[in-house]
Amino acid sequence: MNTKILLGEDRIPKQWYNIIPDMPGPLAPVIHPGTLQPVTPDDLLPLFPMGLIEQEVSSQRWIDIPDEVREVYKLWRPAPLYRAHRLEKVLGTPAKIYYKYEGGSPAGSHKPNTAIPQAYYNKIFGTKRIATETGAGQWGSAMSFACQMFGLACTVYMVKVSFNQKPYRKSMMQLWGSNVIPSPSDRTNAGRAILAQFPDSNGSLGIAISEAVEDAATHEDTRYALGSVLNHVCLHQTVIGIEAKEQLALVNAYPDVVIGCHGGGSNFAGIAFPFAADKANGKNVRLLAMEPTSCPTLTKGVYEFDYGDTAKMAPIAKMYTLGHDFMPPGIHAGGLRYHGASPLVSQLVNAGVVEARAVAQKGCFEAAVMFSCAEGIIPAPESSHAIRGAIDEALQAKEEGKEKTILFCLSGHGQVDMTAYDAYFSGQLEDYEYPAEAIRESLSHLPKVSF
Amino acid sequence: MNTKILLGEDRIPKQWYNIIPDMPGPLAPVIHPGTLQPVTPDDLLPLFPMGLIEQEVSSQRWIDIPDEVREVYKLWRPAPLYRAHRLEKVLGTPAKIYYKYEGGSPAGSHKPNTAIPQAYYNKIFGTKRIATETGAGQWGSAMSFACQMFGLACTVYMVKVSFNQKPYRKSMMQLWGSNVIPSPSDRTNAGRAILAQFPDSNGSLGIAISEAVEDAATHEDTRYALGSVLNHVCLHQTVIGIEAKEQLALVNAYPDVVIGCHGGGSNFAGIAFPFAADKANGKNVRLLAMEPTSCPTLTKGVYEFDYGDTAKMAPIAKMYTLGHDFMPPGIHAGGLRYHGASPLVSQLVNAGVVEARAVAQKGCFEAAVMFSCAEGIIPAPESSHAIRGAIDEALQAKEEGKEKTILFCLSGHGQVDMTAYDAYFSGQLEDYEYPAEAIRESLSHLPKVSF
Repeated sequence: MNTKILLGEDRIPKQWYNIIPDMPGPLAPVIHPGTLQPVTPDDLLPLFPMGLIEQEVSSQRWIDIPDEVREVYKLWRPAPLYRAHRLEKVLGTPAKIYYKYEGGSPAGSHKPNTAIPQAYYNKIFGTKRIATETGAGQWGSAMSFACQMFGLACTVYMVKVSFNQKPYRKSMMQLWGSNVIPSPSDRTNAGRAILAQFPDSNGSLGIAISEAVEDAATHEDTRYALGSVLNHVCLHQTVIGIEAKEQLALVNAYPDVVIGCHGGGSNFAGIAFPFAADKANGKNVRLLAMEPTSCPTLTKGVYEFDYGDTAKMAPIAKMYTLGHDFMPPGIHAGGLRYHGASPLVSQLVNAGVVEARAVAQKGCFEAAVMFSCAEGIIPAPESSHAIRGAIDEALQAKEEGKEKTILFCLSGHGQVDMTAYDAYFSGQLEDYEYPAEAIRESLSHLPKVSF
Repeated sequence: MNTKILLGEDRIPKQWYNIIPDMPGPLAPVIHPGTLQPVTPDDLLPLFPMGLIEQEVSSQRWIDIPDEVREVYKLWRPAPLYRAHRLEKVLGTPAKIYYKYEGGSPAGSHKPNTAIPQAYYNKIFGTKRIATETGAGQWGSAMSFACQMFGLACTVYMVKVSFNQKPYRKSMMQLWGSNVIPSPSDRTNAGRAILAQFPDSNGSLGIAISEAVEDAATHEDTRYALGSVLNHVCLHQTVIGIEAKEQLALVNAYPDVVIGCHGGGSNFAGIAFPFAADKANGKNVRLLAMEPTSCPTLTKGVYEFDYGDTAKMAPIAKMYTLGHDFMPPGIHAGGLRYHGASPLVSQLVNAGVVEARAVAQKGCFEAAVMFSCAEGIIPAPESSHAIRGAIDEALQAKEEGKEKTILFCLSGHGQVDMTAYDAYFSGQLEDYEYPAEAIRESLSHLPKVSF
């Protein structure tokens, strides 16, 4: 009885799957925040290298993965697919539960899947330095690792409260050679403006994004990198689902439902898009995005044009949004606190291809502890949302007496997130449902765009 | 060009390798600390289940691994073997460097290799609860995970200073259901005696061992578990070397030198003993144990009978020792701070089968950072000693213009040890060579035993 389904490194995918040609209808344009007109590739050149801009808008279904990227992927890919025998037994479910584990990467999450190609395309473009931001530190550490692999300098604007409270991830970034700056900083106009007004500001992801974007835009040799939301980020993450599909085929399995956690959308896209391709071809498979009730973008937001950041400096995209000035409470799944969502995932939700479900955090930690006591691996708080979804599906299968095959993505391990578990065990966590009134308020500030 | 050499889970070893029949000469007896006479199996029954006592003295070369243990091993075994292409390139060495990575276990180190069978043999013996101690938390978290897998309760006496300063590992133990007690505690005579004398005591590994042993010895349904030193612990760890040998054979390689870090000896035994078997049969392979200069048991100690613990409650064994009241300074590789060494490894060092080398901590962190920037994985501080050894061997090969095949064990990841890296980067680490005078002093307190 197999527990792990492994692939040799010759089975690392040779191509990423680009869902754009298989989308249900044309993509909405991306809008320039200054002109309110559609952005052109040239508009994006100060921020991204041409290789990534091309991928952002490509209509080619399969895009070759460069050998240099596959070589670095070999350090942890193909990632193992597990059959959760022990969890199934604890649940007493007739369902078969599989999980794709992305926590074995050097940075401990799925983020390096895109950080590595982003560093590579910047390297061949001639970029010398990457400027990026990080909240809790998952993305910053992935990008730091990637820059180290390709000999790029890296400046990470880290939200100040995390810089002070999460020293472990800061140290990981420094180990991989990054310059980690607590944000707001005095290095950018954006940072100085905040500090002038609020000298003791703890920072926010919105401010950190503004600083990183400004740093890149004002330095010839520097480009910006984003860890989620964008089309090319979702593209790179499809190695997850492509491998999982091949691994399931080795045991003659195919999922009835594919589950991922959802913040900006990159992990969900990674596991789900390769199955969405089958669904577009008539295959019967459910795709389920799990988000927190404290930041319920897909379930309580609207599908409209909105800014990608709080400061209204980032492009405007059509997506599910809670409003760019929506302030989610400080739940522990920091990676899921984004007011918007990937435009690709949003369009699929709007078209009914993808289902979304919101879950409260105590139930997620309960699921994570149950999982860890059965399967060993300690999940990242973000990943616990996918586990909650998988367990609920398995319990439903039990109630209905149905065999069902469930696949979920375990996006990262939680060994550096133990303070969140501590808070859960000591009863300090509260479930939080964002008040409809507050969402209505932030949704009243959407930009007036119609294309 | 292979980066990882993987084995399917059907290749998890079916037997452990017991080095006892291949030792150069008979084993010295283990001595009862009270009677100063050789211990009998019956003496050990209050502390260990019979299955483990039998393994401790077995003269059978291969010992079957129970199916129930192999099933749990499947959660992370076989562990990958990596070829360090990138590190070789950075070093410019003609040497081929391979490393066996044990950090992919749920607890993040090699410790579960023995925690799992220890929990299993206790389970079938009828034990209801395990009492054990932990310093920095690696062993405590491995044993907690193992007890959770077999439905045993677990009480971990954690050195108080670590309990307060290393909340991450404490939380991991709690997540896996353990009761974690800061030591010294008021639950044992040993703990109460210390607290009466030093109410603010920060604890020590010696005190925590005394508490765990007393807890086990005074409760019918409870047994004690130790994470290193003992013969059965070394036995269980041989899955590391057995797998590595098979993986190297797949690429037609055999090591000229096998390197492991050395504290109590279990990780070194795990990687080296299966190759020591070949050496006993005439194969030309060097076995190199790397220890810290701050606790130089194998290089500055004596090969004599000594107590296993500070409080003189544990059995007396013939081993390399710095004296049972030797107090190593607080270096960050907490797992390597033991005054003694595995009697098996000690005998091999004394017979010239195993070489030992001591390295200072700054050079180890330098090696760890170089490794991490080349290969991605962040090593545990303990493992960095093996990396230092491997890099030095590779640089020597470069100097001599020799091809050489180097195998080392990367015993665990360091993602929850980032404060140690922080200390290194901020220049707070000092190299420390233990003064010969202090070692002479502690060596003057050895028990008077001769067998």
